[in-house]
Amino acid sequence: MKLATLRTAGGSTTAALATGAGSYLTLPATDVGALLDQPEWRTVVKEAAASKEQKVIAADEADLAPLLPRAGKVICCGLNYGDHIQEMGRELPEYPTLFAKYADTLAGANDAVEVHGSGRVDWEAELAVVVGSELFHADEDQAREAIAGYTVANDVSMRDWQSRTLQWFQGKAWDGTTPVGPVMLTADEAGQAFEVRGYVNGELVQQGNTSTLVFGPAQLLSYISQFTILRPGDLVLTGTPGGVGMGMTPPRFLQDGDVLTTEIEGIGRLENQFRIHAPVPANA
Amino acid sequence: MKLATLRTAGGSTTAALATGAGSYLTLPATDVGALLDQPEWRTVVKEAAASKEQKVIAADEADLAPLLPRAGKVICCGLNYGDHIQEMGRELPEYPTLFAKYADTLAGANDAVEVHGSGRVDWEAELAVVVGSELFHADEDQAREAIAGYTVANDVSMRDWQSRTLQWFQGKAWDGTTPVGPVMLTADEAGQAFEVRGYVNGELVQQGNTSTLVFGPAQLLSYISQFTILRPGDLVLTGTPGGVGMGMTPPRFLQDGDVLTTEIEGIGRLENQFRIHAPVPANA
Repeated sequence: MKLATLRTAGGSTTAALATGAGSYLTLPATDVGALLDQPEWRTVVKEAAASKEQKVIAADEADLAPLLPRAGKVICCGLNYGDHIQEMGRELPEYPTLFAKYADTLAGANDAVEVHGSGRVDWEAELAVVVGSELFHADEDQAREAIAGYTVANDVSMRDWQSRTLQWFQGKAWDGTTPVGPVMLTADEAGQAFEVRGYVNGELVQQGNTSTLVFGPAQLLSYISQFTILRPGDLVLTGTPGGVGMGMTPPRFLQDGDVLTTEIEGIGRLENQFRIHAPVPANA
Repeated sequence: MKLATLRTAGGSTTAALATGAGSYLTLPATDVGALLDQPEWRTVVKEAAASKEQKVIAADEADLAPLLPRAGKVICCGLNYGDHIQEMGRELPEYPTLFAKYADTLAGANDAVEVHGSGRVDWEAELAVVVGSELFHADEDQAREAIAGYTVANDVSMRDWQSRTLQWFQGKAWDGTTPVGPVMLTADEAGQAFEVRGYVNGELVQQGNTSTLVFGPAQLLSYISQFTILRPGDLVLTGTPGGVGMGMTPPRFLQDGDVLTTEIEGIGRLENQFRIHAPVPANA
């Protein structure tokens, strides 16, 4: 099944089930994270689908919120596709390169992304893994069992800020700049690998297959759980394939008005227009 | 005034006011973060102190929880003292080096710290700043106004994991390893600078004065707020002075049973015994 988080009237959100007919059926949880917090969430979805008491929302009326608007942890892996690693001039890693961001960084699948104060806004199309149950000191099998599903994300990066210091956080954690969604495909319906693609104004710029990941989803979750607990609704981004703007000659970055499309076959597509502004004047 | 978060029966916590007599007066909030979430928190404290309806807890019966057990953001600055920067072999920075961790990383002021799977556990005594009101795109004056107070933290670091990749996160975000507290000294009672000291088994190993910070508290908060919102109860660690174990010749790390003491004059003292274990066998 495919699950989404939709914005509703009055600034709140609801979890929803994507139906085969292209519409959404609302579910009794404020978002996908809150749904996954219920151990019997599969039963909750089935009962809601059967009860016909939930509201149906047409696809063209659905306002997609960030899939996990209150994710406790959003942990990202860098340098995880062989081709992207080579494009950045680095060697294949022995350990995953990890960094953290917060739920504030997330954006909805079709949200306009507003950037104030970066002139080097770059794209990173990624498969993201949604945690379905608690994991701590877990081995890979336990981690695999704990995967609730998969979604699409773009780890949009402000390269000017990212390269100011050794640590990437300040180029990666801009509020409302990491689109995630449109849905989570549950793990039971997912295949072994995903084709990840990124487009700028319709032009294909990134393409990769998650079968070439150095560290796969279960491996990443197990590794992270050696030092910090993962909980339902936490999100792990698995890294980006080759084709980012800073790797091009000359480097290419998003311009005001550009549309970034991020898609994974079998899951869905993010389509985000970027508004690139000067820094807020008071702080220039 | 000095505020703390205390553990209470049944696994919950309460905010508390440290009294001049060395005891604590419980406050009507689950922790210092929840207290700061109330815009009129100063009035809440004053009324609680006057009402005599709150419970008094003797200092030797107080079980100190992490000061901000549910902090939404814990953002750390590295390389911020001139002497520590030189000890690490680096040049004075133009921008603050920032990285993130999560509230799970925090520990109470006197908690035993359990480490499974690192053999290079190092100390970083730090002044931490507690955010008191929302900040986004704030200038330094706005940031200064938004500081609720100051506390003591130790950004304990697993150097073996930290040095595995370019990003420090995996060496910094181990659950229950960053002691913070014992109290927050409110900004109105704080001086211009703090003397920060770290001890291992009573031996002074770190000493620095926050007057020598490259980026001061208000500057850090303003800088961070250019890309992500800060909210009441968020925590910003300001970096550590010289004297960390990895900078010694030969390098020195915490051993099983060692006691790490972190103190800031005028605020208080953390005293944490370390239990250093082998990795959990299932994941070795």
